[in-house]
Amino acid sequence: MTEENIVYIGNKPVMNYVLAVVTQMNSGVDEVMLKARGRAISRAVDVAEIVRNRFISDVDVSSIEISTEEIVGNEGTSSNVSAIEIKLNK
Amino acid sequence: MTEENIVYIGNKPVMNYVLAVVTQMNSGVDEVMLKARGRAISRAVDVAEIVRNRFISDVDVSSIEISTEEIVGNEGTSSNVSAIEIKLNK
Repeated sequence: MTEENIVYIGNKPVMNYVLAVVTQMNSGVDEVMLKARGRAISRAVDVAEIVRNRFISDVDVSSIEISTEEIVGNEGTSSNVSAIEIKLNK
Repeated sequence: MTEENIVYIGNKPVMNYVLAVVTQMNSGVDEVMLKARGRAISRAVDVAEIVRNRFISDVDVSSIEISTEEIVGNEGTSSNVSAIEIKLNK
């Protein structure tokens, strides 16, 4: 999995990320990883579901991992945030 | 999986759901399913991570499934919402 096969899900509209995944898969990439943290996690699930239900029907979710990441702020304070990785395969 | 082993994640504070899972597992249940839809999906991931990192260290996430559910409104309109099911095993 190279860096270019990873789509980081943030706060943009969900269709931006759907388009990014569809574009990659149509250019010959067979595997795309969606990564999201915090509130963007539900958007990552939306992206996976929209891609496979509306755009590329032979895409499967091959694995889903959840984890906790530590974020260190500017002043050295740290807080934990949940993260998700959803692997899509064609 | 009986109905009483399912914890539905909604809009309450995350620790309410953590407490529900911990209580069930301490009463002898070895398997709890977390279910959430829409924006509550990220909260479900938080619950799973907090339970296993802070409360019950021998809990594993045994499976994660995502899906799309159709919600029919009062006036017959329907819309799609993403859903997640996280299975926790001791």
